[in-house]
Amino acid sequence: MTAAPPDHRLIDGRKIATDILRECKNYTDEQHALGRVVSICIGDVPETEVYVRNQARGAMRAGLPFEQVNWDANITQNEAKQVIQQMNDDASILGMIIQRPTPEHINIRTLQSAVHPLKDVEGMNPASIGNIVYSDVALAPCTAAASVELIKQTGLKLEGLEVVMIGHSEIVGKPAAMMLMAEGATVTVCHHLTRSVAMHSRRADVVVVAVGNAGFLGPDMIKPGAAVIDIGINQIQDEDGNFEIVGDVQTEAVTEVAGWITPVPGGVGPVTVAILIRNAIVAHKRQIAAGWIE
Amino acid sequence: MTAAPPDHRLIDGRKIATDILRECKNYTDEQHALGRVVSICIGDVPETEVYVRNQARGAMRAGLPFEQVNWDANITQNEAKQVIQQMNDDASILGMIIQRPTPEHINIRTLQSAVHPLKDVEGMNPASIGNIVYSDVALAPCTAAASVELIKQTGLKLEGLEVVMIGHSEIVGKPAAMMLMAEGATVTVCHHLTRSVAMHSRRADVVVVAVGNAGFLGPDMIKPGAAVIDIGINQIQDEDGNFEIVGDVQTEAVTEVAGWITPVPGGVGPVTVAILIRNAIVAHKRQIAAGWIE
Repeated sequence: MTAAPPDHRLIDGRKIATDILRECKNYTDEQHALGRVVSICIGDVPETEVYVRNQARGAMRAGLPFEQVNWDANITQNEAKQVIQQMNDDASILGMIIQRPTPEHINIRTLQSAVHPLKDVEGMNPASIGNIVYSDVALAPCTAAASVELIKQTGLKLEGLEVVMIGHSEIVGKPAAMMLMAEGATVTVCHHLTRSVAMHSRRADVVVVAVGNAGFLGPDMIKPGAAVIDIGINQIQDEDGNFEIVGDVQTEAVTEVAGWITPVPGGVGPVTVAILIRNAIVAHKRQIAAGWIE
Repeated sequence: MTAAPPDHRLIDGRKIATDILRECKNYTDEQHALGRVVSICIGDVPETEVYVRNQARGAMRAGLPFEQVNWDANITQNEAKQVIQQMNDDASILGMIIQRPTPEHINIRTLQSAVHPLKDVEGMNPASIGNIVYSDVALAPCTAAASVELIKQTGLKLEGLEVVMIGHSEIVGKPAAMMLMAEGATVTVCHHLTRSVAMHSRRADVVVVAVGNAGFLGPDMIKPGAAVIDIGINQIQDEDGNFEIVGDVQTEAVTEVAGWITPVPGGVGPVTVAILIRNAIVAHKRQIAAGWIE
């Protein structure tokens, strides 16, 4: 008996991530000294554990020093900001990640603004996001950049491509839309106030879904042969009471209509981590170029 | 004989500008001291004269001190940057405008980045633009903000509105798209690589055109009753050799189909100037809130 052939409609995020991390490893192997990436959790946030673990693993595969720190849940906004500013000045720190969610009294956006753009490996500082508008996508928000990377993997030419982005968050929808425009795509951004999402998604060459709603996108919402990029990560309970992770797309049904589709898990998730690591490498090159480190 | 009644399809940019400037004047009348807005021209740039004159006039109507400075065409990038940094620290300066175009050896984007966000009345610093992505539109690029203002004047509800933006420049198209999304519109951004602009523009409730191409948008490209916002400012020569300013829209023909249309001149131009002045007022409030001035 031979194994079933791979389904070429499924875009393999793990393989793409492996390729990106290998490239990063080639770079780190050549360096004699590298600062570390610091992951900051504020308070006790079990939700972030799996993210942090994956990031640490990705860093290890890329040969990048990674440190996880936990700040007390009662740290004040000012204290947190001061520590971040000290980290900006610390040449042994390559970049910082501020894990979400943070305690309610913490204004995460102000903290993200305090991370120097050259150390903003998450691409979350408003100045980093502003640079995307100027088509400078070097340190882009990781999930947004991952969705662009996954579209490129289909082999579709981005110039003139009709892309419909469903979801207009600051972390994914808006920056991904800007990045896709920079690549020449015609982009429509739909969201909860859009009159008919299907009217848009049905005419698209590529549909990117980031709404956080399990099974939101069904097979009647896409054009045959379209590429579907599923950004959703939703925890649901099956009939037996077991938890599982699913995306925003009815993957099985949509696969019958789509030309390409990213699975969940194993699609955008691993690529997002790999982009974070790649951002750290880009940050390293930029810090050298800026004379911050040798 | 009675005068012809006004054409209610035409959106009167001059009236909107007058209303905005009057509000600004109400604010400046209450202040005992106000810093000045400094307009910086680098080199001898006759194209900017009319803009600077209109800005100076708008500032005067709003009771805002305005100073025009000319820097030598041979100023180096570093010298220019240093002067801007001194201006950031000068409490008597409320904000700066860097007139375009600049000489070729000047990197205008780096200069715009050097303007502190609290003094960036043009809204051109990448950090200011990044804040738009975060739906913080207080100091937005003036022309983009003007196009949003003009749409609001139609009385159309922005939530769920189908808007097609033609042109994806950093100054107008992209930031306007972000601002419209923040207001709840569904936005498609078309540009020179879009397969069929008409396919998009014909289904839109509002079409915003910013391509810099006289007569680009004809009556066959819009849906009856749509609102058309014309951002173009093009100088053309008529049959008698006289120069005139026209927009990107075939205004007369499109007026027969459109529900609303902005004339050129007298549409987006005066509103853009008024928004610049309003940005200066917002900057003043923010500088007080930040403790920079009293």
